Amino acid sequence: MHFDHAGIATDDARSLATLYADLFGLEVAHEEEFDGLRVVFLECGSGYFELLEPLEEGTIARYLENQGSGIHHLALATDDLEGALDRAREHGVTLIDEEPRPGAWGHSVAFVHPSDTGGILIELVEH
Amino acid sequence: MHFDHAGIATDDARSLATLYADLFGLEVAHEEEFDGLRVVFLECGSGYFELLEPLEEGTIARYLENQGSGIHHLALATDDLEGALDRAREHGVTLIDEEPRPGAWGHSVAFVHPSDTGGILIELVEH
Repeated sequence: MHFDHAGIATDDARSLATLYADLFGLEVAHEEEFDGLRVVFLECGSGYFELLEPLEEGTIARYLENQGSGIHHLALATDDLEGALDRAREHGVTLIDEEPRPGAWGHSVAFVHPSDTGGILIELVEH
Repeated sequence: MHFDHAGIATDDARSLATLYADLFGLEVAHEEEFDGLRVVFLECGSGYFELLEPLEEGTIARYLENQGSGIHHLALATDDLEGALDRAREHGVTLIDEEPRPGAWGHSVAFVHPSDTGGILIELVEH
């Protein structure tokens, strides 16, 4: 697997995108509304920063209320998401998504529970 | 600039490295003791997960005490660290490191304060 993106919770994705373009030269690769979120992908080499702005109540809105803006998750890309989930199950790891589900940008995704990954919320992505 | 690594605070870098190898196939690219930390870099494509385990008191030890294991920072690689710091200064951004300083793995690094980057601790790295 390889790095796909870092998910960042923010209350203003477009302003943060502009700031990161100005400061770091990161350009917007994709923007969409998905699952109650404005999602902006910033290209940074072979991966992305995924800016997540809640447009309604949900997990990102609660994250912002509890912790403020921050790095919400890390995503790894795989070309065999079902196999990756099987491997996690074999290791007794708790899955948030037992099966792949549709994610942003048309990808299949599944989240692994941070309780079994050293406190890090890991998203597995198949493009 | 492009993604270089995600810095992860953990109380046991080697165990987390083994787990991430088993679960996600991420291999250890480099390990060293640096600045009171055990630092383990896991290769994930063109970037790394940087596992940071405190061996003495310091910012990572305090982070773990306050928040537990988690994603501590995101690092972007640049081939002009001085220029990147100048650009940040021009935008009125608070720098934690006004000048490049030695970082892990022999790189030059400087941290940008999260108060001016949407709550995200950003490290700039020149290899």
